[in-house]
Amino acid sequence: MTAKDTADAFTALIKTGDFDAVGERFWADDVVSLENGDGPMARVAGKDAVRAKGEWWAANHEVHGFEVEGPFVNGDQFAVVFRMNITPKQTGERVQMDEIATYTVRDGKIVEERFYY
Amino acid sequence: MTAKDTADAFTALIKTGDFDAVGERFWADDVVSLENGDGPMARVAGKDAVRAKGEWWAANHEVHGFEVEGPFVNGDQFAVVFRMNITPKQTGERVQMDEIATYTVRDGKIVEERFYY
Repeated sequence: MTAKDTADAFTALIKTGDFDAVGERFWADDVVSLENGDGPMARVAGKDAVRAKGEWWAANHEVHGFEVEGPFVNGDQFAVVFRMNITPKQTGERVQMDEIATYTVRDGKIVEERFYY
Repeated sequence: MTAKDTADAFTALIKTGDFDAVGERFWADDVVSLENGDGPMARVAGKDAVRAKGEWWAANHEVHGFEVEGPFVNGDQFAVVFRMNITPKQTGERVQMDEIATYTVRDGKIVEERFYY
């Protein structure tokens, strides 16, 4: 299974919007998730911690629309574009949030995800 | 100057289509340029070699349209989306080529560029 195969399977599944299923299938046990900035969520390591981060996000954002473009591949990495229309519960203000994510693949699993915005 | 400042300046300049000017201003002397695949162009290192790669590309592709979306930032890296409508001289066939590029910044210069497609 090449990184391209993983990228295709990952992108097909995430397009269904079932983010939980995506994480359970593709996160490596030692996955690292990197956000921009210096806060406590800037670097989250380990499948359990990354799952908890995803659960926090899902509980605190209402998703009105979600589009995925990609995947785009380079070696053991791939990138996708996310276009989300969301309302963060903290602000109550509906916003368009577009971002790029890159993923590093090892043995069919994602060992690093990095979000750019 | 933060990576965000570099990303903004880079993206504003590349949107003008003057790729030569972009390289001269932003490539570090030891820049590394990474393409997908295993060919001789997969990894090109050094500003002179990366400039030569760009000159080869410009000489061998007719560009009908070029759009840039971004930048999207994470720490010392940023990403952009390129949408190019081109005719490679080798095939003579006009194609749409969309790709994502990520750039790693050090001291206001790009030390690595990586292209995903």
